[in-house]
Amino acid sequence: MITSRDNQQLRQIHKLRRKRERDASGLFVAEGEDLVAAAEAAGWAPEILLRAGDDVEPELLDRVSALGSGSRVIGVYRQRWSEPRGAVSLYLHAIGDPGNVGTAIRAAHALCDGPVILGPGCADPYGPKAVRASMGSIFARPPARAPLAEIPGAKLALDGGAESTLAEAVAALVAGAHESMSTLRRNSRRNVDIDDAGAPVVLCVGAERDGLPAAILSAADAVARIPIAPGGPDSLNAAVAAAIGLYELGNRMAADV
Amino acid sequence: MITSRDNQQLRQIHKLRRKRERDASGLFVAEGEDLVAAAEAAGWAPEILLRAGDDVEPELLDRVSALGSGSRVIGVYRQRWSEPRGAVSLYLHAIGDPGNVGTAIRAAHALCDGPVILGPGCADPYGPKAVRASMGSIFARPPARAPLAEIPGAKLALDGGAESTLAEAVAALVAGAHESMSTLRRNSRRNVDIDDAGAPVVLCVGAERDGLPAAILSAADAVARIPIAPGGPDSLNAAVAAAIGLYELGNRMAADV
Repeated sequence: MITSRDNQQLRQIHKLRRKRERDASGLFVAEGEDLVAAAEAAGWAPEILLRAGDDVEPELLDRVSALGSGSRVIGVYRQRWSEPRGAVSLYLHAIGDPGNVGTAIRAAHALCDGPVILGPGCADPYGPKAVRASMGSIFARPPARAPLAEIPGAKLALDGGAESTLAEAVAALVAGAHESMSTLRRNSRRNVDIDDAGAPVVLCVGAERDGLPAAILSAADAVARIPIAPGGPDSLNAAVAAAIGLYELGNRMAADV
Repeated sequence: MITSRDNQQLRQIHKLRRKRERDASGLFVAEGEDLVAAAEAAGWAPEILLRAGDDVEPELLDRVSALGSGSRVIGVYRQRWSEPRGAVSLYLHAIGDPGNVGTAIRAAHALCDGPVILGPGCADPYGPKAVRASMGSIFARPPARAPLAEIPGAKLALDGGAESTLAEAVAALVAGAHESMSTLRRNSRRNVDIDDAGAPVVLCVGAERDGLPAAILSAADAVARIPIAPGGPDSLNAAVAAAIGLYELGNRMAADV
C-alpha cells in the first residue's frame, strides 16, 4: 500500500499529464474502471496499475488524477500507433481539442475499419481528455500518424464551402462500376480511376473554423460539404462532422461496392 | 471600473455557476467574445456585460470565470425556452453530460429546423459547459422543455439494439406517398398514417449506456439503430448519434417529401 505522495509511481502518473513527458516516455495514463477494463479487453497490459484502497491510499490517487473526478483506479500504458490502413479511415488535420480527437477515435471505431490518422496540429490522442473521450476505443483502435500524401486511397475532403454535398461526393468516390464516368467527373474534383472502385477512401476533416488547408482541398479526389440549414451555425463540431462523413461512407460502401 | 471582488455583479456571475441559482434567477452566463457576439447577432440584450480592462479588472473577471480560460468578456442573459415545434426536432432523454447537450444544440441548429427538446434527466442547457459547447447556437435556437407525449409528430427512437437501421427507419417515417405501406409496416413499429407524410418527425436519443427507456421505445413510431462496425464500441457519443440521425432525416426529407 502506497502511503507517501513521494512514491515514484505516483510521481510518474502526475508527470504524464504533460505532453513532453508522454512523448519522452512513450507512456500515457488511463483513469477509471471503464478505461482500464477496455484496455484489458483489448489485451493491453499496464505498466502500472493502482487501485485506491488496495494499492494506494485513495486521497493520494486523487491527487494525481488529471480529470479531477476521483478515479478509483489509474493505469499507465505504453502508447501504440497503427499503420494507416483500412477500407475507410479518417484523417484529422489540426484538430486541437483533445475531446474532439478522442470522440473522433470512438466514432471511427464504430463506423469504419481504419484508424484515425493524425496530421499536423492535432491534440495528443494519449492526453487525459482525449483518452477519456475515446471511451476505450483508443485501446481497440490505436491512432496512426502520417502525412496525408503517404496514406493510400482516394481522399474525400470535408469542407464548409465546397462544391458537392457529402452524399453526392461519397457516391462518386465509392460507386465504382455502378456509376457512369460522367457522374464521377461531375462530382469529383479529379477523375477517380474507375479501376480503383473498392480502393481505400480517406475522409479528411479540418479544424472547425479554419477548415482544411488549400493544399489538401486541391489534392483531394473529391470535396464535399455537409448541408447546413438556412440560418444555421458556421460549422459543425469537428468530431460530429467526421462521424456524419463516416456514416455516409459506410452506408454507401455497404450498398454500392 | 470594478476593482473589488465584493462587487455585486461579480458575485452574481459567480453564483450563476450553480444550477439552483440559474433556476431561481432565470439567468445564465456566457463567457468569451464569440458567445457574446453570437448573443448580439441573435438579438439578445445582456443583463450584465463586463469587459476585462474596460469594466472590470482582468484578474477579477478571471476569478468568476467558470471555464478557467481567462475570459476577457462575460455576459449575463435571461434564459429563453422555445416551443417544441418544427418539421424535424431532437428530443434528448437523460443526457446528463452538459457538453453533449450543448453539442446537440449546435448540431440541431445546423441540421434541422426545430429546437432541442429536453426530457427528464438532461443537463441544464444554460450551464457554462453546455453554453460553451453550443458555440452560440443556444442563442439562435433556444431549447424547449416538454414531455415526449406532448410533442407533435412521429417519434423516431434511436436505440442500440433495435430492429431496423437508421436509413430504413427514416425512409419509412418520411417517405409517405413515395413508399408503399408494406415498407412502412416492415420498418416501423407502428403503421405511420400515410396521410401524415410531411408531418413533423421527432428524433429521440437517450443516454449512451442506458439508451432510451422501454416506455419511449414502445411508444415510438419507429425504432432505429446506427450500424456499428464489427468489434466496435458499445455505443456512439450521444451528440454524435443525434447528429447522424438528424443528417439522415434531413437528407431523406429533402429528397422524398
